[in-house]
Parts: sequence; C-alpha cells; structure tokens
Amino acid sequence: MTKILILGGGGMIGQKLAHRLAEDGWNGSPADITAHDIAFPPDAANVQRQIVGSVTDPGIMTDLVSDEPDIVFHLASIVSGEAEQDFDKGWQVNMFPCWDLLQALRARREASGGAYLPKLVFTSSIAVFGGPFPDEIDDEFLTAPLTSYGAQKAICEQMISDFSRKGFIDGVSIRLPTICVRPGKPNKAASGFFSGIIREPLNGMEAILPVDDTVSHSHASPRSAVGFLVRAAGLDTDLLENRRSLNMPGVSCTVADQIEALRDIAGNNVVSLIRQEKDPDIAKIVDGWPRRFAARRAEALGFRSETSFHDIIRTYIEEDLNR
Amino acid sequence: MTKILILGGGGMIGQKLAHRLAEDGWNGSPADITAHDIAFPPDAANVQRQIVGSVTDPGIMTDLVSDEPDIVFHLASIVSGEAEQDFDKGWQVNMFPCWDLLQALRARREASGGAYLPKLVFTSSIAVFGGPFPDEIDDEFLTAPLTSYGAQKAICEQMISDFSRKGFIDGVSIRLPTICVRPGKPNKAASGFFSGIIREPLNGMEAILPVDDTVSHSHASPRSAVGFLVRAAGLDTDLLENRRSLNMPGVSCTVADQIEALRDIAGNNVVSLIRQEKDPDIAKIVDGWPRRFAARRAEALGFRSETSFHDIIRTYIEEDLNR
Repeated sequence: MTKILILGGGGMIGQKLAHRLAEDGWNGSPADITAHDIAFPPDAANVQRQIVGSVTDPGIMTDLVSDEPDIVFHLASIVSGEAEQDFDKGWQVNMFPCWDLLQALRARREASGGAYLPKLVFTSSIAVFGGPFPDEIDDEFLTAPLTSYGAQKAICEQMISDFSRKGFIDGVSIRLPTICVRPGKPNKAASGFFSGIIREPLNGMEAILPVDDTVSHSHASPRSAVGFLVRAAGLDTDLLENRRSLNMPGVSCTVADQIEALRDIAGNNVVSLIRQEKDPDIAKIVDGWPRRFAARRAEALGFRSETSFHDIIRTYIEEDLNR
Repeated sequence: MTKILILGGGGMIGQKLAHRLAEDGWNGSPADITAHDIAFPPDAANVQRQIVGSVTDPGIMTDLVSDEPDIVFHLASIVSGEAEQDFDKGWQVNMFPCWDLLQALRARREASGGAYLPKLVFTSSIAVFGGPFPDEIDDEFLTAPLTSYGAQKAICEQMISDFSRKGFIDGVSIRLPTICVRPGKPNKAASGFFSGIIREPLNGMEAILPVDDTVSHSHASPRSAVGFLVRAAGLDTDLLENRRSLNMPGVSCTVADQIEALRDIAGNNVVSLIRQEKDPDIAKIVDGWPRRFAARRAEALGFRSETSFHDIIRTYIEEDLNR
C-alpha cells in the first residue's frame, strides 16, 4: 500500500484530502494514511493513524517519517493573520518544522542506502508575492512578501527546492490562491471575508464585508485545492526543470462579481445579508495581495481550478452546505 | 563614535571594507570597528577589535551585538563551491547564523525599549538566480537558485526583509555580481577563474580557463563591492519600499572581452599565459548563472560599478598588484 503522511491533516484542506484519499485510495489501490495535527474534528476522515501533536514537538518529524512514507503532504501552518500577530510562533510553526521534516526525510533516505525517495507536496501561498504588482503575475515574478506568513512560505519553498535538487527528496510547492468558499467558522486569516460573504448568507446569517467591492482577488474551491495536491503528488517532477514552486490557477474576480454570482444562484434575499463595514487593517493587508495570475506552467502541467465564481459557489453548496 | 561590526571581517572584501572604514571613518568621524572571522591575514586592517571565531559558535551573535553596533555588515559565508560540496556546512554557516544574528539584534532592540535600531547590510549574490534566463535580468525576476549557496542567500534575504518590515532592524541585502579581480590565491568558488585569468598572467603565472571564451558574465571590482556596502549602510531604506534586496550593477562582458582588455593593458606576452583546459563541472555551474542585469533600482539609488572591464583591471593593478 502507498504510505501517505498528512501534516496539518486535521485542518479544513487536510481533512478534505484525507477523506478523498481514504475513499479513492492512491492510483486505484487503498492507501495507508497517517494524519497529524494539533486537533481533529469529531467527524474526521477514517484513516489508519490519527496522531495528535504539534509540528514543533522535538523529534516529531523523525518519528513521523520513521516508516518511510511514499508521499508527504505538508499543510501544517498557522494562518497569515496569526503569524502577523505572533511573530515568534509564525517562524516556529511555519518555517523551522519544514527544515526538520526535510532533514528527517534525508536521514531516512541515507539510512536506506538511497532506495527511499519520498515525494513531498508543500502548500505554499500567493502570499509569497508582494506589491507593487503588474496587471497579471506570471511564473517569473519575484517573491517579495509583505507578511511574515509569506516570507515563511517563500523560505520553505527554497529549502524544498534545494533538498530536491540535491536528490534527497522529490518536492513540489504549490502556491494556493485564496481558498473559497471555506466551510465552517471564520478563522484568523485576513482573507476570511472572501468566504464569509458567501457562506454566512447561504446559512441565513449576516456577513461583514470589510473592503470595497471593487477589490479583485483570485480564488479556488477546497475541492480544487485537494485536486492540486493530488496532482502535485503524482507529478513527474522532471517536467519542473528545477523550478519546483508553482502558481496554481484560480478564478480571478472582484468582490462585486462574487456577490452577483451569489445573487444569480441564491437570490436577492440572501445577498441582502451582506453588510459593508470597512476595516482599514484588513483592507491594508488585502491591498498587498496579488489580484490576477497567469498560471501558465501549472495549467500546462494539468492543474485545473473552477472557471467561474458561480462554480465555486456550487461546489460549496454540493460539498459543504447543510453538513 | 559610530560602532561598526563586520562579520566575515577577515575575508577579502571584509578586509578591504575594514581598511576603508579604519582610514575614512564614518560620515567624517572616526569609526569604532569590530571585525569577526575564523581567521585574519597577517597584514589585517588596524581596527579596535579583531575577534577570531566562527559564526556557528553558540551564543556568538548575542555576544557580538551586546554593545549595540550602529551598523552590522554581514559578509560571513562559505563560498558556492564549498557549500555545494558540503551540504550541511553550507546551511550551518550560510543560513542559521543569519537567523541567530537577527534574533540577537531584535533582542537588543527590545532590551533598549525600542531606542536601538541597527542597520544591517547583508552580502547576497546573483547566485539567488537560476536559469533559464531572459536576455537581461530586471529587478522583478524570480529567485530560483541552482546552488545551495544561492538558496541560502535567498533565504537570508527573506528573513532580513521580514525583520525589517516588522521594524526590528533596518536591513538591506545587496546581490553582488562576481567580484573581479580578486587578489591573492584562488578560493573554492566556481567563479574563481574569472579573476584567475587576469591575476595569474599579471603576476607572470599561467592561468587555466575552464570554459569557452564566449561565456558572458557580470563583474565588479572589490573596490566597487566596498562602495556598494558603504552606500547600502548609509541608504535611506524608506526608498526601498519593502523590497530590500537589490541587484548591484556590474560590467557585463564575455571571457573574450576580458582577455582583450588584458591584452590592451598588459600585452600579448601576458595573455599568452592563459591556457584553455575545459572543466565540464565548472562549465555546468557557470552555465546556471545569469549573464546580464539591468540593475535599474540600484543605479537610481546611486550604486555605481566600473563601466568597462579595462577599469576593473586597472583597479586591480592600482590596489592589489605587487602587494
């Protein structure tokens, strides 16, 4: 059986990934799945091992890779807003454990006499970019992040690329656009309202819009994010030619476009639950984010997102509403 | 007196910087200079404190910044060839001490109640870039290094930018082109021959050229490198608008251009001491390096290199030949 380790396996994307792998297996066969996180939801996916702990626990990476997982998904991190508020925690959770993981995998490879070569898929973020931006960000744009979260992600990407170039692991970093519509409760991410203005009204609750509706942004559904992760894990990384960080595709639209898509699907009464209440702190963070990508490399490698915000809303309704 | 700390102060650039600061002082007044390195040359610059040790010594960064230096020049690193051969040493010397330094400076700032804000100038490198390259690399090109050295430099840049953005330090990373003509003996850098083919013949010795003379590259003299460092230390970093890594200008030319400049200045007999003996390992590393830059931001901020390779040779003859 293909052995799969999911770090951050208790989070929203981690759980959707675990559910999918538990149901579909890997390459047509059942998968042996270990999920690690500081907490898991009560309805967690049914996996072989569910381990509760922090990626900052001493020795944890060595323990977690001791059975030589074929694929490691590294999704564990604190979100942008929290990393901005708690500088030390951001670096201790979002950067150093990635180094520990890489060293632990390399040690297993050396212990195996070179027989073991793990695939590593790391969830990076478009937060590695910082303004000023061109109209469209292409695959050669510099990483000049304007948040600690972005800096930590950019650094992990560099480590993963170098360990891969040296042949110690076989890694890919995928830069996710904002994941929308996130199910469940709001988290501390500054991007939370992009989901909130869809999710809360569909659940009959009021939603706050803290920015102008002219704000433009790039989105992909949680289902697409899981699709990106699975595709990355199966990718022939020779095709990457040593550029192992990939901008993922998404739907680029304004907040007004989001709201009109919601109106088309759910009607005026639902849209009327959105209330604008400007928050300059959030507006400032969001203003530092890129708006539009030309994710040509990822698209050429077969990564696919939704093509309209309507589809993103429909995915939420199918997959998460009323669960 | 302005207190200046030079990490890597025993190296070639570190010594030229120390000599210059010891002679000129800082802003017209004498400077109080501490130089730290694993070794110093016998004719080292006359500075207040010369401390022998490694940047990997536990607690060394806390000790070195305990007197709150106004300016820290961080030049300490092992070179690209060595970092490629000794993976662990590369990361332990070129990356982790930078983190320790930043944390030590931040701790001093916090202990001072915010009164202390050190200027940090970090010598990065064009090795942060990796091919395929456009004809000319501009200030927005991605950092996709093809050496561990380049990855380590890129990571330090990200850390320095984020600590600066948070207001803990005031940092700048300058990406040096290949420094040419390096005085003294060859080091382990794969770029060593760019200097060797000028230096050895001028000293009456044979030089090996391991690549085709069509290879194109970007150079600045050690004197220019010191000029870049001093300018960076005096820069109003508000002008950088959170993009604190700067590509330095240089003279872009082919190896054939270098050789013709040497012929113009020193004659055919000197040039005849260059012998071509191809080394595919070196050719491969050099092939992964950028050739030409448009260092527009740095030039707009007043950073200046030589404008011809003839001037670079003349600088060597003035400053280093027969010393």
